[in-house]
Amino acid sequence: MLIDSTYPKSFASDNHAGVHPTILAAIAGANEGDAPAYGGDTWTAAFEDKVKEVFGPGAEGFAVLNGAGANMVGLALMLGRFDAVICADSAHIATHEAGAAERLLGVKLLTAPTQNGDGKLRPDDITSRLDGIGNHHVSQPTVVSISQATELGTCYSPAEIAALAETAHAAGLRLHMDGARLANAAAHFGCDLRAITTDVGVDVFSFGGTKNGALAAEAVVVLDPSLSDAVPFLRRQSLQLASKMRFISAQLSALLTDDLWRQNGSHANEMAARLADGLTEVPSVSLAQPVQSNAVFATLPAAVVETLRQRYLFHYWDEATGVVRWMTAFDTTPEHVDDFLDDIRKAAAS
Amino acid sequence: MLIDSTYPKSFASDNHAGVHPTILAAIAGANEGDAPAYGGDTWTAAFEDKVKEVFGPGAEGFAVLNGAGANMVGLALMLGRFDAVICADSAHIATHEAGAAERLLGVKLLTAPTQNGDGKLRPDDITSRLDGIGNHHVSQPTVVSISQATELGTCYSPAEIAALAETAHAAGLRLHMDGARLANAAAHFGCDLRAITTDVGVDVFSFGGTKNGALAAEAVVVLDPSLSDAVPFLRRQSLQLASKMRFISAQLSALLTDDLWRQNGSHANEMAARLADGLTEVPSVSLAQPVQSNAVFATLPAAVVETLRQRYLFHYWDEATGVVRWMTAFDTTPEHVDDFLDDIRKAAAS
Amino acid sequence: MLIDSTYPKSFASDNHAGVHPTILAAIAGANEGDAPAYGGDTWTAAFEDKVKEVFGPGAEGFAVLNGAGANMVGLALMLGRFDAVICADSAHIATHEAGAAERLLGVKLLTAPTQNGDGKLRPDDITSRLDGIGNHHVSQPTVVSISQATELGTCYSPAEIAALAETAHAAGLRLHMDGARLANAAAHFGCDLRAITTDVGVDVFSFGGTKNGALAAEAVVVLDPSLSDAVPFLRRQSLQLASKMRFISAQLSALLTDDLWRQNGSHANEMAARLADGLTEVPSVSLAQPVQSNAVFATLPAAVVETLRQRYLFHYWDEATGVVRWMTAFDTTPEHVDDFLDDIRKAAAS
Amino acid sequence: MLIDSTYPKSFASDNHAGVHPTILAAIAGANEGDAPAYGGDTWTAAFEDKVKEVFGPGAEGFAVLNGAGANMVGLALMLGRFDAVICADSAHIATHEAGAAERLLGVKLLTAPTQNGDGKLRPDDITSRLDGIGNHHVSQPTVVSISQATELGTCYSPAEIAALAETAHAAGLRLHMDGARLANAAAHFGCDLRAITTDVGVDVFSFGGTKNGALAAEAVVVLDPSLSDAVPFLRRQSLQLASKMRFISAQLSALLTDDLWRQNGSHANEMAARLADGLTEVPSVSLAQPVQSNAVFATLPAAVVETLRQRYLFHYWDEATGVVRWMTAFDTTPEHVDDFLDDIRKAAAS
Repeated sequence: MLIDSTYPKSFASDNHAGVHPTILAAIAGANEGDAPAYGGDTWTAAFEDKVKEVFGPGAEGFAVLNGAGANMVGLALMLGRFDAVICADSAHIATHEAGAAERLLGVKLLTAPTQNGDGKLRPDDITSRLDGIGNHHVSQPTVVSISQATELGTCYSPAEIAALAETAHAAGLRLHMDGARLANAAAHFGCDLRAITTDVGVDVFSFGGTKNGALAAEAVVVLDPSLSDAVPFLRRQSLQLASKMRFISAQLSALLTDDLWRQNGSHANEMAARLADGLTEVPSVSLAQPVQSNAVFATLPAAVVETLRQRYLFHYWDEATGVVRWMTAFDTTPEHVDDFLDDIRKAAAS
Repeated sequence: MLIDSTYPKSFASDNHAGVHPTILAAIAGANEGDAPAYGGDTWTAAFEDKVKEVFGPGAEGFAVLNGAGANMVGLALMLGRFDAVICADSAHIATHEAGAAERLLGVKLLTAPTQNGDGKLRPDDITSRLDGIGNHHVSQPTVVSISQATELGTCYSPAEIAALAETAHAAGLRLHMDGARLANAAAHFGCDLRAITTDVGVDVFSFGGTKNGALAAEAVVVLDPSLSDAVPFLRRQSLQLASKMRFISAQLSALLTDDLWRQNGSHANEMAARLADGLTEVPSVSLAQPVQSNAVFATLPAAVVETLRQRYLFHYWDEATGVVRWMTAFDTTPEHVDDFLDDIRKAAAS
Repeated sequence: MLIDSTYPKSFASDNHAGVHPTILAAIAGANEGDAPAYGGDTWTAAFEDKVKEVFGPGAEGFAVLNGAGANMVGLALMLGRFDAVICADSAHIATHEAGAAERLLGVKLLTAPTQNGDGKLRPDDITSRLDGIGNHHVSQPTVVSISQATELGTCYSPAEIAALAETAHAAGLRLHMDGARLANAAAHFGCDLRAITTDVGVDVFSFGGTKNGALAAEAVVVLDPSLSDAVPFLRRQSLQLASKMRFISAQLSALLTDDLWRQNGSHANEMAARLADGLTEVPSVSLAQPVQSNAVFATLPAAVVETLRQRYLFHYWDEATGVVRWMTAFDTTPEHVDDFLDDIRKAAAS
Repeated sequence: MLIDSTYPKSFASDNHAGVHPTILAAIAGANEGDAPAYGGDTWTAAFEDKVKEVFGPGAEGFAVLNGAGANMVGLALMLGRFDAVICADSAHIATHEAGAAERLLGVKLLTAPTQNGDGKLRPDDITSRLDGIGNHHVSQPTVVSISQATELGTCYSPAEIAALAETAHAAGLRLHMDGARLANAAAHFGCDLRAITTDVGVDVFSFGGTKNGALAAEAVVVLDPSLSDAVPFLRRQSLQLASKMRFISAQLSALLTDDLWRQNGSHANEMAARLADGLTEVPSVSLAQPVQSNAVFATLPAAVVETLRQRYLFHYWDEATGVVRWMTAFDTTPEHVDDFLDDIRKAAAS
């Protein structure tokens, strides 16, 4: 089943949305004459300045091509040959990147189940996985990786991140954040982007543009200056270097200008909240996770799922428990949500 | 030194050019409503059809993000754990991909010097590197990789490729082609794209869009049907899968429609030929390689290089021998070339 | 703390024991004049014949240097670039090989908790981990790996292995067995070695010599003939090829001659059983796992552990639950066990 | 063709020899009671002391299982993710380790042809390969690796090594030495082992035991203290950790005691010199390389090679140029050499 028109709106993924008009305009605007390849252009310089403006003067930003690429480059910076990464068992790097962490990084992922399956790592999940430190038979944990927002749509508060950073650093580990939906998390807390990154002890993170309205643009942001020299080499080797980089940088700059990231993130979050609100009235449907970003995880009867999937694309998160995932995007409208709610109500009633 | 205006035109790289207007329009045209992510969209289906139309019904095309990515995915398809690839010592995979072949593929590159340093592998270069077959101390050659056009701007004729394919296949090896500038090569021979790929025994190749006027779009094309099932997994794991793939597919389709690839390739080639022609009149300058695509390799005195580099960006290919590389692009104009020639003449005269 | 004398006997590991006299004699016996290196010698030919005699005419044996090496070579035979291995969460490959599986093989381990933590995989553990097959975002399971005996000292019966093999094969996966203590398992069931390997559907396994009385000698045994051609290359590349291989082969042949493997395995098992029997009389001590091979897992009060560790080397398996691991070896005597039991009784009484 | 008797002596490899009686006795002597596994035993402690005694108080020795393993562990210590190693094109790591460097280390080998093909790297070979430093498209050279003695039987003098170390260090690279035949080189110069390692700027090297009369024992020796902490983890992960390590350590200690290494190395060298001397009288035979260790590279007519190979095992080094390699060992006798010379003379005369 292919969907090509604007209706019904897909609730399957924020990747189903197109490109925000401002970003498309930024791409077109970068198409002026020549520019040095591989990042020696003025659009990239402007993006690098934006990163410092938004994340602080010590932040260095590197444009890459996709989210898995941003994760692999960011993690590679901090990993030696016999290292392990502590992460939630639902982490994207552990579940949906086709084993890139194991093959490209050669790293062992020490995955932790999370409380109520909410996708959020706790300090205890770190401390309980440090036993093998110093034992030469065991992969050595050196990085903690969290997702913001998580794959379950939940968000780490600034205090929660600070606590994880403190625990990680105290044990000699670094903190990495997969920020494919960083904008949604900051929008949720109504805070600046640096309040959930630079200010709370994150060492390296990604800032996701694609799910936030870009065509294909992510950034690896390095806050530990001892790590940044290696990025250009790792980005090149990891197949994440765009030759005509101005067109990637221009997308990221557009998101970081006039808080477009927040506008897009907030809107998507509001649409998810609207959907969640509407679901409270549907008797057979319940929320499986708190709705904090642009994802709604709901539990519903198999027959209802079946009916809805005849018209809508979305993911069965866990068929055994009847949990589905519905995502909203920057271009989801209240009408899209309301029409979807109508269809949910009808399916639930039949 | 950053260049941002249209003048003077860069002769450093076809990656310094922007995006062809038709391709930019195709991107904008794909920005309609929702589309399934990761390739389940109609733009990608159309691209896949175009590949079969252009390269034959047995060809399967897979859109990726950059040239190194296309090479790594294409080669990975054909390589086991203890394999070697025979390639020219100037091959991009051997010289300019930051060791991706060794790290991501774990492969040994058996590099061969080429006749007059022209970047072209000959059948003897294959047969003379097969001694270790069956010896468990030695990496086993299983793939021959050639670049079309080569990194030296030279092109393999259909007959030359057929001879390499025959030699490779007779020894049980497969033939890979790095086609980052495949369009320029086909334009040089005035032949169809399939005349230098499908019809002459290539097993897997890349079709480069970016240097031919795209924003960021390459294709891995598989002609051996036993290999294609693995591509989606390798593309994902190799960080080459775009979530909003419609925008990559649309670029490739645009190039494969109405022979835009040829229009762009031919034009760039003609500009290189114009430059080469003009050089014949400059006494201290000589061509270091035959000009067959959009690259001019010229030998000139160090002082002339010095003078020219004050105004122009270009690569010193080999400082010891005084060889420089000048590239033209789809948007290089006759005026650009003529003005550059003027500056070369002046520099050579002073 | 270093232990150098024969007393008190170590219960920490069967690796603490020395070399069985027959095997030492076999090594000395192989020290006659010259022999081709890397396996072209008559001792290796004899070992290869022994493997066929013991495991069946279709079995091919390859001598390697240690258990982790045997596992990595054996698994590498069956794994492509985006594959996963299903194994118990206690599997040696997952816990104690310093991330070799991830780094050297690039593989994702899909680890399963086991019933009562007994280390034994069940068919359901396979079928419940096959959901991602065909999904390009997910590592593809292609191998099931079990340990015989398990790291918890338990053993898979022939019927249990056959059921796992059937489940694996039905789903297109192969079955690997880490047989570091294969001899102990066969001794437990009183069966031939082939009854728990060749006859029940195992595709590739290791036969451990070192823990069974050898100096350093393990074998990779391949039962699927389509896989064996790759072994010499993988063994060489994986740093598991001995140049003076005759001395490794001679060890393995000695174990496979006159059932020395069984003599050593049975004896060690009996000593573990004797220890377990004696423990039934100690009130504060209970068995944490059934004793089926040469390992005793016991739960005892922390104070008792503390007291015992002043005199004995052994592993705290799980400090939280008070479980310790005691291993016996081919050279453990009834007196060693009885004296140890005396000390346990005293520690428990104080 | 298998050779099992003591006659005719093999001139194919020093790996065809057996184990020196003193070393076999050391192995038997280590078979006393229990010992902690994985290196916590007194034999290993004694070996570690020997290393400090022989190579200086800053040297740390780590026992491993074979030469390729020693090379991979030693190099891994010094290599990051996008690094290159400069080495001779004849280096063992480049030619005969089945691509382990590329697959296990993920490293690019920058191989240099050597003067007269003598296998010896010169300082110029380093400086001419540093152009790419800082260029993110290019693997970054961080290690220079040399073999002592080389694969061509030639030896680096202390001054030559010091010059290489100085050149490497000045450029920020480290110096690694593959010392599979370190004993032969020191014997050639009549110097201590530290005169060609510690005293001349080597950072990490291997000390080969196997070709010097051991069963299977090599050492990685680390002279840069900042590198040694990682060795135990890399050794474990690289499948080079022996569980019953006392038996490996005992072999190495035996070689380092009473200069057994020198006795064995000198004797083998003398036998090679005797062979080379004898060859001067054979008209159709000439030396292809200076004979400095236990290898004789000779050029002889194809028909002579053919005749000799009917009776003797040895390697055709280069069939095109008619160069063969003959190796002597600790157990080669003057009679073996003289009889071989007789056969060479006869073959040359017929």
